[in-house]
Amino acid sequence: MAKDGLPKQAEDFPAWYQEVVKRSGMAENGLAKGTMVMKPHGYAVWEHIQRALDDRFKATGHENLLFPTLIPKSLIDKEQEHLDGFSPELTIVTIGGGEVLEEPLVMRPTSETVIWPTYGKWMQSYRDLPFLYNQWCNVFRWEKRTRIFLRTSEFIWQEGHTAHATADEAKEEVARMLEVYREVAEDVLAIPVLTGKKTPAETFPGAVYSLAIEGLMRDGKALQSGTSHFLGQNFSRAYDCQFLNQDGEQEYAWGTSWGFSTRMVGGTIMAHGDDRGLRLPPAVAPVQVVVVPIYKNDEERSGVLEVAEKIKTTLAGNLIRVKVDDRDQYRPGFKFSEWELKGVPLRIEVGPKDVAADQVVIAHRVSGEKQTRSTADAIGQVAGLLADAQKAIYQDALAYREANTHEIESYESFAEGVEAESGYWVGPWCGDEVCEAKVSSETKATIRVVPLEPTDPGGACIVCGKPGTQRATWAKAY
Amino acid sequence: MAKDGLPKQAEDFPAWYQEVVKRSGMAENGLAKGTMVMKPHGYAVWEHIQRALDDRFKATGHENLLFPTLIPKSLIDKEQEHLDGFSPELTIVTIGGGEVLEEPLVMRPTSETVIWPTYGKWMQSYRDLPFLYNQWCNVFRWEKRTRIFLRTSEFIWQEGHTAHATADEAKEEVARMLEVYREVAEDVLAIPVLTGKKTPAETFPGAVYSLAIEGLMRDGKALQSGTSHFLGQNFSRAYDCQFLNQDGEQEYAWGTSWGFSTRMVGGTIMAHGDDRGLRLPPAVAPVQVVVVPIYKNDEERSGVLEVAEKIKTTLAGNLIRVKVDDRDQYRPGFKFSEWELKGVPLRIEVGPKDVAADQVVIAHRVSGEKQTRSTADAIGQVAGLLADAQKAIYQDALAYREANTHEIESYESFAEGVEAESGYWVGPWCGDEVCEAKVSSETKATIRVVPLEPTDPGGACIVCGKPGTQRATWAKAY
Repeated sequence: MAKDGLPKQAEDFPAWYQEVVKRSGMAENGLAKGTMVMKPHGYAVWEHIQRALDDRFKATGHENLLFPTLIPKSLIDKEQEHLDGFSPELTIVTIGGGEVLEEPLVMRPTSETVIWPTYGKWMQSYRDLPFLYNQWCNVFRWEKRTRIFLRTSEFIWQEGHTAHATADEAKEEVARMLEVYREVAEDVLAIPVLTGKKTPAETFPGAVYSLAIEGLMRDGKALQSGTSHFLGQNFSRAYDCQFLNQDGEQEYAWGTSWGFSTRMVGGTIMAHGDDRGLRLPPAVAPVQVVVVPIYKNDEERSGVLEVAEKIKTTLAGNLIRVKVDDRDQYRPGFKFSEWELKGVPLRIEVGPKDVAADQVVIAHRVSGEKQTRSTADAIGQVAGLLADAQKAIYQDALAYREANTHEIESYESFAEGVEAESGYWVGPWCGDEVCEAKVSSETKATIRVVPLEPTDPGGACIVCGKPGTQRATWAKAY
Repeated sequence: MAKDGLPKQAEDFPAWYQEVVKRSGMAENGLAKGTMVMKPHGYAVWEHIQRALDDRFKATGHENLLFPTLIPKSLIDKEQEHLDGFSPELTIVTIGGGEVLEEPLVMRPTSETVIWPTYGKWMQSYRDLPFLYNQWCNVFRWEKRTRIFLRTSEFIWQEGHTAHATADEAKEEVARMLEVYREVAEDVLAIPVLTGKKTPAETFPGAVYSLAIEGLMRDGKALQSGTSHFLGQNFSRAYDCQFLNQDGEQEYAWGTSWGFSTRMVGGTIMAHGDDRGLRLPPAVAPVQVVVVPIYKNDEERSGVLEVAEKIKTTLAGNLIRVKVDDRDQYRPGFKFSEWELKGVPLRIEVGPKDVAADQVVIAHRVSGEKQTRSTADAIGQVAGLLADAQKAIYQDALAYREANTHEIESYESFAEGVEAESGYWVGPWCGDEVCEAKVSSETKATIRVVPLEPTDPGGACIVCGKPGTQRATWAKAY
């Protein structure tokens, strides 16, 4: 850890982000341009996210499978012909085993183009459906400007791809998975999210409509945090994926896809971090409790370490992720700063006087508070304190979002306001993409979502003054 | 599932393997040549293997991280210059974002070449060591002849890469991880394995020595099932990875690497399967118990399904992986065959007479036996029966191995014998690679392992007649 402090969030948020990611040991740039190395502290957060999602996927009836990374280029081209397709910049293999390939292979940017032709082989009758499948994998999108976790040329995600016998069933699936994402974002990552529908301009190409959850970062920018798409019959038509329906007729299957990625490790950093570093929600913190022994000589050392180890053993037995920082080469103050930087929710300090008084000091990363407790009380209370910290960090983020959500009074005040203060700006919109485009070109703010169900727009379109049809939420976004 | 039976193992083992993989829904070929799609039944087996390994990696102090897939080609070339390197056929990206890359990128065949230069940046002092890191990822080796799970141009594995301050510590790590592999192979996959050392000719290029576990498949061929390598300072020297040791001197770090892959899903199929299909060890079976309701009309249906659902709910509450096969379109006999093909350890049959008598029939996949039990007894006994099946399938494989392990009497009898009957052939070897090469060219059998610790060779080298130095185990191998 560098000696000098972090950049201040309020002064230079991107610099703060870059430094906190690096110094906390979350990740760093890889040796190939645009790639990242997820270091143990960052990867462990991702593992907790994975587990939280995967458990919920399975509880909602899904199974995992895995398709190959490499896709024959002709299948990608077919998507371009049939759908106004997704056009990420592709990463292309042209040499294998020392020979130039007859047909180049594309490293998957997403897997619809290889999954749908395969689903076509797997389905005969409506009785075979639904296919409720998901895969955990890496995907590749050649990016010119990259930022760790948020935009890299390779990232890890899960992509769910389901096929259904009816449109209604597929739509229910799309809503169900959005709800899974909302739950993981709010209950696990402690990030309050808006749920809603993307405008047609922001819909995944190939989808009929796209739902999303959006979180607000501490620089006032929105982060699209998970998307769930109703594909209609678009991909099944493009890849000739039919089944015999209940009426004995061939029908194209109805599809969905939904994804959540390592981007959300970045989201967790930016939604909760402060000028001292990360603040990790206990549910995903790799270390939930760090015990720091304080001592000046060998005799003190053995006394405090004995207590520290006892605390560790008891907590670990209760499945709490706990670590004793017994490194001799660093002073306690250095350790305190380092674990604060790493976002560990609770720190327990044990010094010689504490040992004598059978007490410890508990320091809370979220609130910044400190309390002295008897050792037994402290051990007994840790699970409850972690649960409190999980709630408190969510409440902090919710309060931040509320303080940064603005009702739009007029287009002028909005355009000025969104420059100065980011956050969400909410107001009526006529639904015309001309108005949408005018706002985004003049203010850099885009419509993040409109409500899932139509609501009272509450007035005339803030841009053109024609009757509003929807209430839109604008923000600058990652 | 095709109507006709599987090929017989004894008649055509490769055809049996190909068909059982396909019909049981484990995997199929992908759309790009040499790739595979791991289907839900196969992927779920892999997930259980992953969990078993990952839990043990963490219990032995390791953390996960993740390096990028793409490696600048210059780093691969550097390995070739410095080490008599591993030379798999490479998969090479030459185009990114529509432009030809200045430097081609190689899809990782394994990650030493990108990990060691990075470790060099991460280590300063002996206090930073050891690095005990592992990653779960896909790797790419362009293969001409492929076979699902056993040899594909992409596969999934974990690769552990550790760095240590002393050679002894690294050697302990190599042995520790071999033991983890042995435990997972034997206790989880129920495959008895030989543990031992590879001969210099079979050692991983770049390693000082390689340890391995070897399983015996039901065609008498050996399958290398996990390897653990002592790298010495080979990679740290090649990539200039030094630390300040306790004496205040710069020293090259001592390395290990160890890997276990989706190949072992194939190993599990081949070590246990029979002419009716898969036999899966309960520890990794995606479905441990299938309940098949038997009925002829709606009234019977509702009665048996009620019992079936009750059984399911109780077992699922005890964390047993249970499924009720309530598909109306198939007869019970078809379902029995299908679940036998899929290797489900226990089948519970519930018919109308059983409901009346408050009993069920339990069919055992491993032993082929059937028993009638009161419903309550059956439910209560399932966990114990699964534990018994786990032991029984291991004992079956162990008995097979014992019956197929031959003491070598003479080179001639060995050379003739290994043609007719595969299996393990054990005898003294002088340690000379000329003798080793003579055997492999004349018999196709290779030395799988020699003992970890020197043992009495038990006689003269079976090839040249010079004094034996080690007891070697030969076999034909995958």
